[in-house]
Amino acid sequence: MSILVGQYLFRRLKQLGVGTVFGVPGDYELALLDLPSKEGLEWIGTPNELVGAYAADGYARYKGFGALVTTFGPGELSALCGVGGAFCEFVPVVHIVGYPTTASQQSGRILHHTLGDGSYDHYIKMSGELSCATAVLKNAATATAEIDRVLTAMLSIGISEDVAYSSVPAAGLDTPLRPHIASDPETEATVAKEILAKLEAAFSPIIVVDGGAGRRDWASFADKLVAAAQVPFYVTTLGKGAVNETSPLFGGAYCGAGSPVSVIQAVEAADCILWLGNLPSDFNTGMFSENVKTANIVDFQRFSVSVGQAKYAASITHVLPKLVAAIESNSSFVSRQNTFPPARTPYPVPASDALTQDYLWPRLSGFLRSGDLVVTETGTSQVGFLSTDLPADASVWTQAVYGSIGYAAAAAVGASVAAKATRDYKRMVVITGEGSLQLTVQAFSILARHGVPCVVFVLNNKGYTVERYFHGFEAKYNDVPLWDYCALFKAMAPNVPRVQTYKVAKTAELDALLNDTTFQEEAVPKLVELELAYGDAPYLLRGLFGKK
Amino acid sequence: MSILVGQYLFRRLKQLGVGTVFGVPGDYELALLDLPSKEGLEWIGTPNELVGAYAADGYARYKGFGALVTTFGPGELSALCGVGGAFCEFVPVVHIVGYPTTASQQSGRILHHTLGDGSYDHYIKMSGELSCATAVLKNAATATAEIDRVLTAMLSIGISEDVAYSSVPAAGLDTPLRPHIASDPETEATVAKEILAKLEAAFSPIIVVDGGAGRRDWASFADKLVAAAQVPFYVTTLGKGAVNETSPLFGGAYCGAGSPVSVIQAVEAADCILWLGNLPSDFNTGMFSENVKTANIVDFQRFSVSVGQAKYAASITHVLPKLVAAIESNSSFVSRQNTFPPARTPYPVPASDALTQDYLWPRLSGFLRSGDLVVTETGTSQVGFLSTDLPADASVWTQAVYGSIGYAAAAAVGASVAAKATRDYKRMVVITGEGSLQLTVQAFSILARHGVPCVVFVLNNKGYTVERYFHGFEAKYNDVPLWDYCALFKAMAPNVPRVQTYKVAKTAELDALLNDTTFQEEAVPKLVELELAYGDAPYLLRGLFGKK
Repeated sequence: MSILVGQYLFRRLKQLGVGTVFGVPGDYELALLDLPSKEGLEWIGTPNELVGAYAADGYARYKGFGALVTTFGPGELSALCGVGGAFCEFVPVVHIVGYPTTASQQSGRILHHTLGDGSYDHYIKMSGELSCATAVLKNAATATAEIDRVLTAMLSIGISEDVAYSSVPAAGLDTPLRPHIASDPETEATVAKEILAKLEAAFSPIIVVDGGAGRRDWASFADKLVAAAQVPFYVTTLGKGAVNETSPLFGGAYCGAGSPVSVIQAVEAADCILWLGNLPSDFNTGMFSENVKTANIVDFQRFSVSVGQAKYAASITHVLPKLVAAIESNSSFVSRQNTFPPARTPYPVPASDALTQDYLWPRLSGFLRSGDLVVTETGTSQVGFLSTDLPADASVWTQAVYGSIGYAAAAAVGASVAAKATRDYKRMVVITGEGSLQLTVQAFSILARHGVPCVVFVLNNKGYTVERYFHGFEAKYNDVPLWDYCALFKAMAPNVPRVQTYKVAKTAELDALLNDTTFQEEAVPKLVELELAYGDAPYLLRGLFGKK
Repeated sequence: MSILVGQYLFRRLKQLGVGTVFGVPGDYELALLDLPSKEGLEWIGTPNELVGAYAADGYARYKGFGALVTTFGPGELSALCGVGGAFCEFVPVVHIVGYPTTASQQSGRILHHTLGDGSYDHYIKMSGELSCATAVLKNAATATAEIDRVLTAMLSIGISEDVAYSSVPAAGLDTPLRPHIASDPETEATVAKEILAKLEAAFSPIIVVDGGAGRRDWASFADKLVAAAQVPFYVTTLGKGAVNETSPLFGGAYCGAGSPVSVIQAVEAADCILWLGNLPSDFNTGMFSENVKTANIVDFQRFSVSVGQAKYAASITHVLPKLVAAIESNSSFVSRQNTFPPARTPYPVPASDALTQDYLWPRLSGFLRSGDLVVTETGTSQVGFLSTDLPADASVWTQAVYGSIGYAAAAAVGASVAAKATRDYKRMVVITGEGSLQLTVQAFSILARHGVPCVVFVLNNKGYTVERYFHGFEAKYNDVPLWDYCALFKAMAPNVPRVQTYKVAKTAELDALLNDTTFQEEAVPKLVELELAYGDAPYLLRGLFGKK
């Protein structure tokens, strides 16, 4: 049986769990876009490519793989920031680019979207800097092997218009694609034993749930490890959302010097830290203000696990289940554990009529519920949300390594669509700042139309506030022009029924809104603009900049 | 005297005619942003980097140079599509990127905005594909020479936070920067003589004003050449706006097979064509449907002039003035010329109450007036505007080589600011489609606040219409979600006084609006949404796709 190269590509994506493809049509990709629906894939066009790239990222974080289609040149380049972010944070997104025909590429003529120099390889070289694998399909004979190679490694594929419609054998599709992480059971068993020994010898062991090492692949073992080990656990900015915070063993969020004193003391005094997906980036470590001894850490990574200074070639995904089993079967360790619930000092909440972030973040704990999927934006939201506790069966993530503002609203588009498909989550909660939102405000248009119902919180504190803390607190360049976000949200979805918007400036107004049953229950797109004072920032952020 | 490296850079830009710097603040560039105001430069922050890049492009097209500042990584990458477009179309824009400190770059630590791999050179390699010169300033000792080298060639500069604040000698600033195009007066005189001989021997000479070879540098000679030679002249898509169309010698726009019959006949029968800035890209040649013999062409380029098959190392900018002088002093040529005004068949205008593009484009000729600066979007606007005639002292441009949709509204931001500074233009007219506008709708926010007053026409024909003509006329992927553009325009500028919006669906409504004195005269931001039928396209575009 034969199949078109383009069909082969989309059928492979379907095998990998992709149900929806995001992107913007462009003339070099139009014919290609006839194919997804034939393979049972949904197409969701996004208002621009950056929104599409973030949407594919958000989708991939919950469905496992994401796909974005753009057109050669401008479309492709406009997506690169989003593609780079996915690459940086181990999110498998394939960027499919519609290329001109092979004849056009050979002709040297000045086609639109080229740089006018007759060369067609500039853009793929650029993508190569942000990808673990790239290919431009110029030859049907090698196309399917190239597709399989790139999808197994995962990233950027350019597909010439004519090659997409060349017939090739379909037989290759019978061999499943499977990204491979080496496993050596003997090493893994040794590591699990070493860790158990370290745990048994420890006086004050803890677990830190971080977000590196491909969080999605190991996150389901975080709860199991906590349940087995029965020791206090903490989350980092990247790890928040990967573990059930309703456990009495939950000690809060650790983010270096800005954290509450109880957390700093517990984490930095621990003599054994099982650190899942440790990723010591600046935003994830309170700007490198963490203070923990390597000797005390069991460092779980994608391709290695280190016990103190000893590094083993074993993956977190293989070691974690074995460790859980080893603890469970070691009754002496479990029985001697005291399930001492960690002390938690609450974040200080000011008494003020005017809404502040210090009031907002703890207050949101009571608003969130099981089935919520939350994305927070780099900046004050990302930091502030560390003082919001999650209910069970809810999740949150944030792009804290790459830290591209504008990510949240657009990534929510994809995550929301994935949530609808998997039925894992019932509501999409987006928490962003007004300066960040301005980069990708177009996402509203799609967020209101697809996926599970959304609630968007826009924190309007009159500027790029995290930048104000970095430098130029009152500088004009940190100002953001005034927009009417409630009106915008409606104007981007005038034919979507029952879009609701709210503006809140007082703590009492926020309480009333969050307590309102209709607001909680009604499954319609909602936006809440939170009017905050100029430069308002959460406790933890002020702490990091020494301005508690 | 010494000066900070950052100051040196901005002072150089000022010397080059830059008065306004565009961009988005990011933490690696914040301290750098303290410097433009100290050098007398204005900062205009844009809602995202793509808008900023297009704005710098629009600015450079009228002020000669443009500057964009972004932050390392996400900000930088989000601008690349705009940077590529400027490079492709010979628009000198410098992209200044705020880099982390040199110590950070050497540390290998995972800073935000990196790819998490400790490497800091990925992004500059990517920019290298889109730039004639790049540099990352890591050393104060070589920084000023590097700045001068890159600015002379013109493009991408990464500037480490600490190097920006290092002191260097200021003396270099006394030597002016001057992009250099070689001049050999002897060759130039020979070429002018050859061209004159060819003109004299011709039976039906014409001039085609195109837009390549750095249009801005030679455009002022187009009118002079027409006045001296007194032969019919035509414009291309890229050339439109570079020449005064009110001359009786103006024959219309030539765009290959889609052009009116009178234009096709005149251009393709001409036995001598002085072709200024010939750029044979697909969109600029009616998808390569032009039919003109090379032997008949005098091809004026940036670094060469070809007379038939003979190519001379001489630049359009040096040859044009000499040619004009040669014609003027050759009384025999001028006196024997018949100033035969070319016949112009009008584009067919349908009798219909509902507004169509076939009605719109000729009708806009009467609306435009001296002092208007117009930008049209790739797609139906770019093609349709070929049937609108410009008044004297008005200009238009469009990005027809690179062809990135979303360009128009954002490029208008920069052009509008440049127009205000130069006082060359009094009104900014933006003509775009709704699908294109959705990519960069944020530009509204800045367009309403800065520069000369704007009038934005949004052609809402329910989809990516030029794509519908390419492939998939009724395909769902060519649909665009419904937005309320009038409400959006106001929502992005709620504190800008007297923003006006209009919605027009009938020819009579369009006439009434365009005839309205207040609409014409009032210097406030205006938006007109033109409601067109699904897939409505202009005559010329239908012709190119054989659907007249």
